[in-house]
Amino acid sequence: MPEIVRAALVQSRWTGDKQSMVEANVAFARQAAAEGAKVACFQEIFSGPYFCQVQDPTHFDLAEPVPDGPTVELMRDLARELAMVLVVPVFEEEQAGVYYNCAFVVDADGTYLGKYRKTHIPQVHGFFEKYYFRPGNLGYPVFQTAVGPIGVYICYDRHFPEGWRALGLAGARIVFNPSATSRSLSQYLWRLEQPAAAVANEYFVGAINRVGVEPLGDDDFYGGSYFVDPRGKLVGEAAPDDVSAVVVRDLDMDLLVEVRQTWAFYRDRNPAAYAPLVQP
Amino acid sequence: MPEIVRAALVQSRWTGDKQSMVEANVAFARQAAAEGAKVACFQEIFSGPYFCQVQDPTHFDLAEPVPDGPTVELMRDLARELAMVLVVPVFEEEQAGVYYNCAFVVDADGTYLGKYRKTHIPQVHGFFEKYYFRPGNLGYPVFQTAVGPIGVYICYDRHFPEGWRALGLAGARIVFNPSATSRSLSQYLWRLEQPAAAVANEYFVGAINRVGVEPLGDDDFYGGSYFVDPRGKLVGEAAPDDVSAVVVRDLDMDLLVEVRQTWAFYRDRNPAAYAPLVQP
Repeated sequence: MPEIVRAALVQSRWTGDKQSMVEANVAFARQAAAEGAKVACFQEIFSGPYFCQVQDPTHFDLAEPVPDGPTVELMRDLARELAMVLVVPVFEEEQAGVYYNCAFVVDADGTYLGKYRKTHIPQVHGFFEKYYFRPGNLGYPVFQTAVGPIGVYICYDRHFPEGWRALGLAGARIVFNPSATSRSLSQYLWRLEQPAAAVANEYFVGAINRVGVEPLGDDDFYGGSYFVDPRGKLVGEAAPDDVSAVVVRDLDMDLLVEVRQTWAFYRDRNPAAYAPLVQP
Repeated sequence: MPEIVRAALVQSRWTGDKQSMVEANVAFARQAAAEGAKVACFQEIFSGPYFCQVQDPTHFDLAEPVPDGPTVELMRDLARELAMVLVVPVFEEEQAGVYYNCAFVVDADGTYLGKYRKTHIPQVHGFFEKYYFRPGNLGYPVFQTAVGPIGVYICYDRHFPEGWRALGLAGARIVFNPSATSRSLSQYLWRLEQPAAAVANEYFVGAINRVGVEPLGDDDFYGGSYFVDPRGKLVGEAAPDDVSAVVVRDLDMDLLVEVRQTWAFYRDRNPAAYAPLVQP
C-alpha cells in the first residue's frame, strides 16, 4: 500500500490589508482541504505585504507573538476544523526590538508543534530584511505531524545548502520553502536551487512564491509555486506566475525510499571532512 | 581590463590500453593549448578504463604513486611545454592495499602543486568504488595556479554540497569535476547539480564525463562535458554525448565578482547554525 501525502501550497496576491489577506488564505486552505490535501503551507509572511521592500519602522506593528498571538489561535482552529497540517509563515515579535521571520506548524488536530525562524537574512535592494529580522536561533527543527516529519526553510535560506542538509539529517521528508522573490533578481534560479536541494537531500520540496507587484515597491513576485520530488523532477506543473493559486499534489513517499535506496548519500556523507563549514 | 581565464575540459573514449589513452589525452591537451587554453582538466582516472564496473584485484595494477609516479612526471613536462595548468585524475597507490581516487594539479611552469583525493565513494551496480578506494583524507585543497585558485571535486563527490562549499570557502574560483557517470543512472541530474553548486558557491564549475561504453561493463558514459558560470548558466554548449571532445571556453572572473556583489552568500552564511553537518 503506497504512502501518498496529498499536500498543498498557497500563493496569494496581496489584498490590501491584513484582515482580508487572512480571510483569502483561509479560503485557499479550505479549497486545499476540499481537494483532499492533508498539509498546506502559505507564502512568506502570508498575512502582510512584503514590507521589506522599504525600511520603515511602522511595519514592526505587523509582528505578533508566536505561539501566543492571534494568528496561531486562528490557525489552530482552522487546522482542527479541516483536519489538515498547516505551515504558517508570519512576522514574529519576541519582544519590542526583537523580531523574526518565522513559520509555525500546527498539527492536523490543532496542536501547536513549534516554529522555525529564518536563519539567513538578505539585505539587497527591495529585500531590506536585516533591518527587520534577527537571524533565526532555533536551528532546523523537523516537526512530527500527521503527514510525517516536515521542515521549513524560508526564502533566502534556500541559497544555503547547509540548512537543507540539516533538515534532511533531522529526518524531514517534505521541506516547505515559503518565499517572496522577484522576477529580475532570482527567477532564473527558481527551478534550479530547490530541485537540487531535493536531490542532494532526497526529500520533497514545496516551493512557494508570492505573486504580483505590491504597493510598497517594484518587486515583481512571480508565483510559480511547485513541488519537486527527490529525483529533482517537478510533481505536475508549477502554478502560474501572475495569479493567486492553490497547488495540490500527491507526494509518493515510496519514491523517497526508492531514491534513497538507489543513491545512498546519507550513507556516504563524511562529516569528519566538513569542519570548514562550521568555522566562524 | 577584464580577467578572462580560457579553460579546457577533455572527454575521451577509452582507447583500449593505458599507453594509447595517455597519448590521446596528451594530444587533446595540445589541442586545448593551441586554442589558447591556460588550464585543462582530464576525465576521472583518465589513463585507465573505468574498472570500477567490476570488482577485480588485477586492476590495482593500474595504480601509481602521486607525485612519485610516471604520470606526474609526464604531466609536469607537458604543462611546462604548453605553459598550461593541468588537472590530472589518476588511480593513486599510497602503498600496497592503500589506494585513492585522486587528481593532481601541475602549474603552468611544471611545478607539482598537490593532489585531491575523492572524499565520497559510491558502491552501486557498475560503480563498485568502495572495493578499490579509501575515502580521501586530504580535505578540500585549493591550488594557487597561474590561472588563480582552483579546486577539484571528483564525480560522486558532486552529490554532496558540503565539499563544494568547503572549496568555495577556501577561495576556489574554478572547480573541476571529473566524472564517470552513466546514462541510465544520473543523466537527468547532470545539468542540475553542478549548476546549483556553481550558484550556491558563486564560482565556475567544469564538469567532465567519460564517453561511450567500455569493454568492462554496460555503463554508458554520456559525455556532455560543460562549464557553468556562477549564475548557473552554461558557458557555451556542452560537449556531445557520444564522442571524444575538447571543450575550450572563456571564463570571465569579473562575472564572479559581479555575482558575489549582487548576492552575498558568504556574508550571510551562519556557521554557528551548521553543527548538525559535522556530527559523526
